[in-house]
Amino acid sequence: MTRRLHVAVAQLGPIAREEPRASAVARMVAMLREAAARGAKLVVFPELALTSFFPRWWMEDAAEVERWFEREMPSPETRPLFEAAAALGVGFHLGYAELTPEGSRFNTAILVGPDGAILAKYRKIHLPGHRCHEPWRPFQHLEKLYFEKGDLGFRTFDAFGGKLGLCICNDRRWPETWRVLGLGGAELVLLGYNTPAHYPPAPEHDHLQYFHHELSLQAGCYQNGLWAAAAAKAGREEGCDLIGGSIIVAPTGEVVARAATTADEVISAVVDLDRCAEIRRNIFDFAQHREPQDYAAITARKG
Amino acid sequence: MTRRLHVAVAQLGPIAREEPRASAVARMVAMLREAAARGAKLVVFPELALTSFFPRWWMEDAAEVERWFEREMPSPETRPLFEAAAALGVGFHLGYAELTPEGSRFNTAILVGPDGAILAKYRKIHLPGHRCHEPWRPFQHLEKLYFEKGDLGFRTFDAFGGKLGLCICNDRRWPETWRVLGLGGAELVLLGYNTPAHYPPAPEHDHLQYFHHELSLQAGCYQNGLWAAAAAKAGREEGCDLIGGSIIVAPTGEVVARAATTADEVISAVVDLDRCAEIRRNIFDFAQHREPQDYAAITARKG
Repeated sequence: MTRRLHVAVAQLGPIAREEPRASAVARMVAMLREAAARGAKLVVFPELALTSFFPRWWMEDAAEVERWFEREMPSPETRPLFEAAAALGVGFHLGYAELTPEGSRFNTAILVGPDGAILAKYRKIHLPGHRCHEPWRPFQHLEKLYFEKGDLGFRTFDAFGGKLGLCICNDRRWPETWRVLGLGGAELVLLGYNTPAHYPPAPEHDHLQYFHHELSLQAGCYQNGLWAAAAAKAGREEGCDLIGGSIIVAPTGEVVARAATTADEVISAVVDLDRCAEIRRNIFDFAQHREPQDYAAITARKG
Repeated sequence: MTRRLHVAVAQLGPIAREEPRASAVARMVAMLREAAARGAKLVVFPELALTSFFPRWWMEDAAEVERWFEREMPSPETRPLFEAAAALGVGFHLGYAELTPEGSRFNTAILVGPDGAILAKYRKIHLPGHRCHEPWRPFQHLEKLYFEKGDLGFRTFDAFGGKLGLCICNDRRWPETWRVLGLGGAELVLLGYNTPAHYPPAPEHDHLQYFHHELSLQAGCYQNGLWAAAAAKAGREEGCDLIGGSIIVAPTGEVVARAATTADEVISAVVDLDRCAEIRRNIFDFAQHREPQDYAAITARKG
């Protein structure tokens, strides 16, 4: 038996600060149709896919902050995406800024089934950046200010014929993310990201941004024997360059599909979920080879 | 201030089954002199550097097994290496099979100071392979039979002007190894390996052996902001091809030196231990960004 799933990644080019959600949704619907025409059954959209990457701006007015957040999902503005997907019989992954009824704000991703039902939700755990205005930076990265740390853990979900895991952007750089999802049995991890090409605290590494992105994905996949599909928001957005490099990675760590632009672009691959066993039953047979008694520091200490 | 340390990796070509330890030691002394002539202050020799990689053979006779092990270090056969290093004022890392006075057997590495004193010892934790004779294999990998799991943990040691960590071969594939050493403050990780080019349980991945080796090293270095120096035993040894690919990797994950043969070969690089901060004070500032409360599965479960 092979469990084959045709997965597409729908990379988004830049979204302008004043671009309405309806415009971003229309761009996503167009890519959803393209992916469905190829035969894809699951489409991965980026992190915070409905708006410009607003954590780059310092905003003191609470109302100004809240306009970037979604109070309901689907909403009147996002419903066309849900309806198009259901009409096509295609599921999708969507990242957005979530404002809960209790007033909590999260950087969130959902997994939507081919019938339009929300199957799973994840709230970003590894929030990068800073909490205070740092005027020396050419742009801010205020995720630690605008979002709370995710409260849902790293979970896996039975969907699309396999076991799926979700994480978001900076989570992908942390081996703990992949390991917890791998221990949970994840066979395919979906994620979106907004990664500036310029990192103000260490600009001497800017030329390594694509390398570090791919390195983290490839290592996470290989060391846990799972697939990953990663969708960028890319290109020059409000004066800030975001890397592209959306990729689909095999359990061997091999990149099997890669975006070639920093604009709206669909890539896809047929992933065989049964191939996870090639790694997991051999070199990384956890039950046989892991030695948790020697890992205590990982959970006992923060830094 | 920069703390610069000139590190060499001395890759060993194959060692024949009947090659005496004195011969291997003479080859290592020659490379030690070459490294010292370049200005290196620390030389990394491979895992099980004194003999052929004996776990490839099924041996039923306990005396036959024990002849591969060292009962003392230094011994009459290894003393010339210690003496040459002390005369040159160079420290070294050496892997060997250790038989303790209590009769325990470990896959061990030691760190020796420029005065010839043993500064640190590590016993391999992630033992790969199998415990029983599997005649279907073209060669065995009986580390789980011939060695006990290391009992010294993943520790770091103040030496050579920095904080050093040790691991061995298969340990490098496990992100937990790097994370525990990184949390311990390691700035430079030394390791040796014997990695067959052919992996009998999943031969369809043989062409990825170098890729998986480098991927694991590069991710471990980048995700923890540390240097690594990895020494192979390489080449066709008793009919079994071992990968070469000895490398020195920067805290950015960049390979800064790489062996170009599968024979005895010295590579070296001047590593600036202060460069670890470029990663550790920024993207991977553990104290600021790690979220251990969400990592519980890593230490709570084996598989």
